[in-house]
Amino acid sequence: MREELNKEEPRKPNILVCNDDGIQGEGIHALAGAMKKIGNVTVVAPAEPHSGMSHAMTLGTPLRIKKFLKNGQFFGYTVSGTPVDCIKAAMSHILTAPPDLIVSGINYGSNTAINTIYSGTVGAALEGAIQGITSLAFSLTTYENADFTYAAKFARKLAKKVLAEGLPPDTILSSNIPNVPESEIAGVLITEQGRSRWEEATIERHDMFGNPYYWLSGKLRLLDESLEQDEFAVRQNYVTVTPVSCDMTNHGALGTLKQWKLKK
Amino acid sequence: MREELNKEEPRKPNILVCNDDGIQGEGIHALAGAMKKIGNVTVVAPAEPHSGMSHAMTLGTPLRIKKFLKNGQFFGYTVSGTPVDCIKAAMSHILTAPPDLIVSGINYGSNTAINTIYSGTVGAALEGAIQGITSLAFSLTTYENADFTYAAKFARKLAKKVLAEGLPPDTILSSNIPNVPESEIAGVLITEQGRSRWEEATIERHDMFGNPYYWLSGKLRLLDESLEQDEFAVRQNYVTVTPVSCDMTNHGALGTLKQWKLKK
Repeated sequence: MREELNKEEPRKPNILVCNDDGIQGEGIHALAGAMKKIGNVTVVAPAEPHSGMSHAMTLGTPLRIKKFLKNGQFFGYTVSGTPVDCIKAAMSHILTAPPDLIVSGINYGSNTAINTIYSGTVGAALEGAIQGITSLAFSLTTYENADFTYAAKFARKLAKKVLAEGLPPDTILSSNIPNVPESEIAGVLITEQGRSRWEEATIERHDMFGNPYYWLSGKLRLLDESLEQDEFAVRQNYVTVTPVSCDMTNHGALGTLKQWKLKK
Repeated sequence: MREELNKEEPRKPNILVCNDDGIQGEGIHALAGAMKKIGNVTVVAPAEPHSGMSHAMTLGTPLRIKKFLKNGQFFGYTVSGTPVDCIKAAMSHILTAPPDLIVSGINYGSNTAINTIYSGTVGAALEGAIQGITSLAFSLTTYENADFTYAAKFARKLAKKVLAEGLPPDTILSSNIPNVPESEIAGVLITEQGRSRWEEATIERHDMFGNPYYWLSGKLRLLDESLEQDEFAVRQNYVTVTPVSCDMTNHGALGTLKQWKLKK
């Protein structure tokens, strides 16, 4: 009896939740809800949407950190900066101890292939890994009619798995989830970052003074042809899980370059 | 005689020059000057400084493209966005044909180790590689008392080499150059992205209304101990040349993750 009394409850993990769509994005509420079932959650997210912010951080401007209420209840903190700023502010100022896990998302729109490098959702998770925290990024493959139900369920499942197994150093898992009902999900695949990329276009318009302004535009061109690659797999309704590293060295190129024998 | 008349001059390469410190940054003028000795140069740079912008691009705001004069002469174009925006705008709107080479920099401050991922200078060059163009990034290891003389000379040398040899797909070379006289340069080393990273801090201050605001701050901690790593090597006065790829997959982790046998 005494022994049983002394037995400690396993400590619930502390989980930091971030995103790049901003604190009002639907996906972060779904993700925070899922994480609350397995841990103690702190939400720290950009005050405004920051898609396409990659690993950008704010250097020349101070940041504001504010409390954000949802239905009159404290929900989390906003930071007037990028997703990476959120992780830095959370780690060095808001949290009293490093979290056990950082989860970022759930993003509107897939972060497969070349979007891995543009994504603020992935950026936030990578910043977690850089700071030594097990970190995950989640994205749903749509910008409209988003249903986060299954994505949130899968996020919880993957979070539990990595809390148990850990991850290689400097590496996050970036997961892309098809926006279809659970019954239509084909399975889960471990994938590489695909080679699909954007066909760029710049649209020119004119303001009321006749001066031109420009919108960056483009279309993602599918350049992948195997289920080993995230963009191809997610289009076949597979959930993809890609290990993404902050070591960007092309190690395979080192040998050839050394043969150049560059002199000063 | 006739044959000699018909012999074409070898075509001068077309070189796009960008940076992240903005068109007024001293380093881009040194770099453009060096490139003009070997090719036809077009400068497209951010209108304002964009350090720490990584691979960020502008999605929700239109861009302005303007001509920039230097001493009353046309010098190049400014874009009211990030370094990556500059490359996208140049490639899809400003240039009439893809360039033979993109060079980015010369940056104030080294872009070794983890700074590779934060750097807008590297971001611009990587965007070039993503679009299939041979691309280079150059950084000088100082923020003050910068002398770009040797760095510009080395940039020209490396540019000529890669124009002759080419680079592996999706890979740039990111070169860091010590801010010392040429006579003190120890040599040139092909390096990996080091593991040195920032010890984070957030500085809290209060505005005139008593409300707090925050500055991200920190100190780069040396975690490298070999001349194979860029941050260590550059501190020993070596010029470093690191091949940086836009494939961020941790290929070594794929096998272990597949053994997890994740289910939907």
